[in-house]
Amino acid sequence: MDNPSSSSTSESKTADLDPPLHAVGFELEEITATRVTGKILVSHKSCQPFKVLHGGVSALIAEGMASMGAHLASGLKRVAGIHLSINHVKSAVVGDLVHAEATPISLGKTIQVWEVRLWKVNPQDSESKSLVSSSRVTLLSNMPVPEHLKDADKGLRKHAKL
Amino acid sequence: MDNPSSSSTSESKTADLDPPLHAVGFELEEITATRVTGKILVSHKSCQPFKVLHGGVSALIAEGMASMGAHLASGLKRVAGIHLSINHVKSAVVGDLVHAEATPISLGKTIQVWEVRLWKVNPQDSESKSLVSSSRVTLLSNMPVPEHLKDADKGLRKHAKL
Amino acid sequence: MDNPSSSSTSESKTADLDPPLHAVGFELEEITATRVTGKILVSHKSCQPFKVLHGGVSALIAEGMASMGAHLASGLKRVAGIHLSINHVKSAVVGDLVHAEATPISLGKTIQVWEVRLWKVNPQDSESKSLVSSSRVTLLSNMPVPEHLKDADKGLRKHAKL
Amino acid sequence: MDNPSSSSTSESKTADLDPPLHAVGFELEEITATRVTGKILVSHKSCQPFKVLHGGVSALIAEGMASMGAHLASGLKRVAGIHLSINHVKSAVVGDLVHAEATPISLGKTIQVWEVRLWKVNPQDSESKSLVSSSRVTLLSNMPVPEHLKDADKGLRKHAKL
Repeated sequence: MDNPSSSSTSESKTADLDPPLHAVGFELEEITATRVTGKILVSHKSCQPFKVLHGGVSALIAEGMASMGAHLASGLKRVAGIHLSINHVKSAVVGDLVHAEATPISLGKTIQVWEVRLWKVNPQDSESKSLVSSSRVTLLSNMPVPEHLKDADKGLRKHAKL
Repeated sequence: MDNPSSSSTSESKTADLDPPLHAVGFELEEITATRVTGKILVSHKSCQPFKVLHGGVSALIAEGMASMGAHLASGLKRVAGIHLSINHVKSAVVGDLVHAEATPISLGKTIQVWEVRLWKVNPQDSESKSLVSSSRVTLLSNMPVPEHLKDADKGLRKHAKL
Repeated sequence: MDNPSSSSTSESKTADLDPPLHAVGFELEEITATRVTGKILVSHKSCQPFKVLHGGVSALIAEGMASMGAHLASGLKRVAGIHLSINHVKSAVVGDLVHAEATPISLGKTIQVWEVRLWKVNPQDSESKSLVSSSRVTLLSNMPVPEHLKDADKGLRKHAKL
Repeated sequence: MDNPSSSSTSESKTADLDPPLHAVGFELEEITATRVTGKILVSHKSCQPFKVLHGGVSALIAEGMASMGAHLASGLKRVAGIHLSINHVKSAVVGDLVHAEATPISLGKTIQVWEVRLWKVNPQDSESKSLVSSSRVTLLSNMPVPEHLKDADKGLRKHAKL
């Protein structure tokens, strides 16, 4: 899953599905109604002045991944994030590979809540993970899709496991 | 402040101070220890699939602006965001001009809390504003700056009102 | 409004409308669809072991007041808090009189967001206020009231300004 | 652990350690530096007008339990909650028995983050749990204990597993 060709696939998938995530260098991997994953190699374009992963980029990743998962979990009806809460617990520096995973906490008919965790793996010891941030995204779901947004699910229909 | 030349200045200032903010098309304006402002013209690069401003972009703007303000308010000591909470209350569509303002709620010695509001102005009636999102950023502040990060304040020394 | 007889009225009003708020010693004052206010004299029954106002009591006050305001603002339809976020910024000690005010940030048809601020007044200088906490309560609103809950608004009909 | 005598012990332990928690009917069970648990039988004194567990009571439980755990985890140094974020995902009605558990997400030297989950067990099927709320409590920790607060840890020294 980490060879150059699939990496280029991850990139184009992200560019298609979420331009802001793509702009900061994030790459989507698995996309399903119960789990969304991805990764980011921390670089200049995702950092703040102290050369660590920008907390706002972590928040962007959380909101983007949770929205995709919620969109799938609502059967491709319209969803809208109404609240995001994120705890930044450890910094990641340039060169760190940060993994992200979104999973549902509650899939209500009207409200969904997703948890998104970012962590990094110790390069010397792949068993040792450090939590970078943990967030909660609250979304309104199952809203009707207006006519002019009928193709909003085009990206997910192409790239996600429905 | 909205003529083309100053707009190009805003762009380069943002590129210098916060690459992720620049990547999504945000432009910083005023930067002081008590107020940070900026704006974004909603476009493809800041949207999610339903063609509205990506909630994660609003969060990125909040975290970025609050961090700059807190960095200044702590006398250019090191700061680190530890929590962000954002309510998305109204959507902004492609073509909308969204304004952002960060102001301090509490400037403690150890902890700072900043509020960041995004709103849009009705094009037909410049008196009528709609709140797009409202957030709270909690930061650890007044931490010592390590030797290798001594130039982390270079951008603010150049672009901010100290 | 602070004479003994109205104070006893505040107490019975709170006991009627919100037993948990009453149990910690909080007293409701004004209750309208655009503003809910009240106060608490910090005592043993609202403190944690470091003898300062319990952060959870501040959260309880926020959720309780925002719910009343939202209930009124939705025309006495059913409301349900879905998220609360609170920043504790300054402590209040036993004997401090803490004031609370809830105001709406956004009164959407489906979602309401209320801000609740707690502050204390300097006893030596009534002009000088210190913010104790600031919170955001997000509520689902305008939900139908089931038959067996038809009298859920009895307290507000009696004590609030409709 | 549910016989009347130990239940009365839980009650007096809670009255000792956290009067506001005791006032709403909550009972602490296990108290250690890595896990705090307890339960509440939903009754009139913990409800809001729609006769469901008051969201502010859930928040009070979260803040109280996380503070105890953090106090222990910091070696009985002083701790102070700075932020609480809670998602209410399912209601609990009068008569429901709600369980609560607090566990650490991050035990930093300066900042601790705890997660607190409340859930109820289906009376017909003890295997089936429903999440009632999920919260995150962020605390400043390891602060020096002032002379006049030297006995703030008396309750934990008596009732917790150090």
